[in-house]
Amino acid sequence: MLTAARELFAEKGYDGASLRAIARAADVDPALVHHYFGNKEGVFVAAMRFPVEPSELLPMILETPKAELGEAMVRTFLFVWDDPERRAPILAMLRSAMTNERAAVMMREFVTSALLARAAGLRDIPLIRVQAAAGQLIGVMILRHVLKVEPISSATTEELVGLIAPAVQGHLG
Amino acid sequence: MLTAARELFAEKGYDGASLRAIARAADVDPALVHHYFGNKEGVFVAAMRFPVEPSELLPMILETPKAELGEAMVRTFLFVWDDPERRAPILAMLRSAMTNERAAVMMREFVTSALLARAAGLRDIPLIRVQAAAGQLIGVMILRHVLKVEPISSATTEELVGLIAPAVQGHLG
Repeated sequence: MLTAARELFAEKGYDGASLRAIARAADVDPALVHHYFGNKEGVFVAAMRFPVEPSELLPMILETPKAELGEAMVRTFLFVWDDPERRAPILAMLRSAMTNERAAVMMREFVTSALLARAAGLRDIPLIRVQAAAGQLIGVMILRHVLKVEPISSATTEELVGLIAPAVQGHLG
Repeated sequence: MLTAARELFAEKGYDGASLRAIARAADVDPALVHHYFGNKEGVFVAAMRFPVEPSELLPMILETPKAELGEAMVRTFLFVWDDPERRAPILAMLRSAMTNERAAVMMREFVTSALLARAAGLRDIPLIRVQAAAGQLIGVMILRHVLKVEPISSATTEELVGLIAPAVQGHLG
């Protein structure tokens, strides 16, 4: 079923692949997909081995005071990226997206629908400002883990929080 | 000569490929390389079709008041990335760096030696803060031009300056 889902996401993009179509491609009942993965987002997370459940992040986003959202976002990002096992599937997705237009569409739609737009909607922050904050984090992670530029590559978590949280908070505040 | 240079940069990295070694690989006199390209940075810019001469950016960095460095850095980045012809070779380098360890070493060394470390040294800003500023710009450019996420993908130059310059200035100030 996850193989069918991966193929359908790659072919139709995230928004274009319905849970019903995934079930049809895998030749199973939609109720079964629903039972195992909850919704399309759950299927995507499992099929792409996406290392975070967006639905687990939502309570955190809702409970954090607005003045502390920047730091919380940086810590969440570092939690994912600084763990080699969580980082690997995200880097793989990003590599595909950079070299393959279909993978780029799929990642764009997932990042927008499941992550950024929802975070923006929850806290009533303009989407473009959430994207600017995400850009700060993505760029630092590329310098740290892909290009491995020093000294940012060996900075500690606390050093990075001190360095980046003010900029992220500036975007979200 | 540029083919020989490209191969040597890919093999030895930016720091490891000397002007003398490039001349030897191309079977020409080092004085000739020096005559045409000035220095190793000039060879790299030509060989990789890097769309900006770092040495042309230095006067700008030196002349800009410190309180306006953030905006100047954003405008320089946008000038390069928002022009499809200038963007193409940088995107090609970034794609290679994301999928090939040698290309990553080459890009890391060039970005560090020729761009970030020099900019940091010129204005007495800690290197890690210049990297945080570069991270903000690289991440936004990936969202804008690779993943093509809306609305940041169709924002105007002035909208982007207003959105990002304060964060970049925060890092550099």
